[in-house]
Amino acid sequence: MGTTRITAEPDTPFIDLEREFDAPPDLLFRAHSEPELLKQWLGAMYEMTIEEYDVRDGGRWRYTHHAPNGEAYGFHGVFHGNQSTAGMLQTFEFDGAPGRVSLDQLWFVPNGATTIVKVHSVHQTVEARDAMIASGMERGLNEGYARLDDLLARLAAPVA
Amino acid sequence: MGTTRITAEPDTPFIDLEREFDAPPDLLFRAHSEPELLKQWLGAMYEMTIEEYDVRDGGRWRYTHHAPNGEAYGFHGVFHGNQSTAGMLQTFEFDGAPGRVSLDQLWFVPNGATTIVKVHSVHQTVEARDAMIASGMERGLNEGYARLDDLLARLAAPVA
Repeated sequence: MGTTRITAEPDTPFIDLEREFDAPPDLLFRAHSEPELLKQWLGAMYEMTIEEYDVRDGGRWRYTHHAPNGEAYGFHGVFHGNQSTAGMLQTFEFDGAPGRVSLDQLWFVPNGATTIVKVHSVHQTVEARDAMIASGMERGLNEGYARLDDLLARLAAPVA
Repeated sequence: MGTTRITAEPDTPFIDLEREFDAPPDLLFRAHSEPELLKQWLGAMYEMTIEEYDVRDGGRWRYTHHAPNGEAYGFHGVFHGNQSTAGMLQTFEFDGAPGRVSLDQLWFVPNGATTIVKVHSVHQTVEARDAMIASGMERGLNEGYARLDDLLARLAAPVA
């Protein structure tokens, strides 16, 4: 629990992640597919607005992170194929780098009482993959996943 | 003219193509973006029906190749970013392998009186890339591009 394993072999355009969560796959899927839940953890330290989040084959998504200094960072993409508790597949594009797209596949793998979230991300070039790693992705990811741990604990708690 | 250069380095998920055409970039863009033109060359030896072809950021496309024996092969994807005479970007998925997606970028590069079409295709895994190469892609591509040569000549011909 708590540690994200990031693999990015040299000279490949791949990033692979693994992170264990103390929750069943259906809660992980809810936290990744329901906008009201997603913005509670993915924004990490930024406020996040979700303009569109149409979780189905060909459905678009678009959200914006708002930094405290007033800067806004928009991202968008499209879901591909079946989105379910087994996993999700989507394209990912930063508004600031149009035409530079990654293809991100997620799996929610049952592991006894916990779930391993696996992500396989493919970039268009090795250089674009390296730039993503260099952008501070790991820190943002760990902060976001720590918030996701908290959210999952709240979702799993018995209603008072 | 006439020869497609295909590069697929070992242990990468990339396929790169280059093919010269005796036409300006705007005709190449039309032949790739107008369904009535696309089906005149992309189907190669198969009859092709285009169910959807919405050439804009986030727009979906879907077409089917009909083999003489009655088999049908469907493909679909989504356009990403700006689609223009400079180039196009789209995802590509075979209905028979849902969840296996490639990301295909095209450039229409002016080259004096001709145009070089460049394609950079990224697959989710090296194995998926290898399977695409092994599927007879090169033959289908060369047949399709020969028909595209003919179509471009007809489009460029003065109206009688």
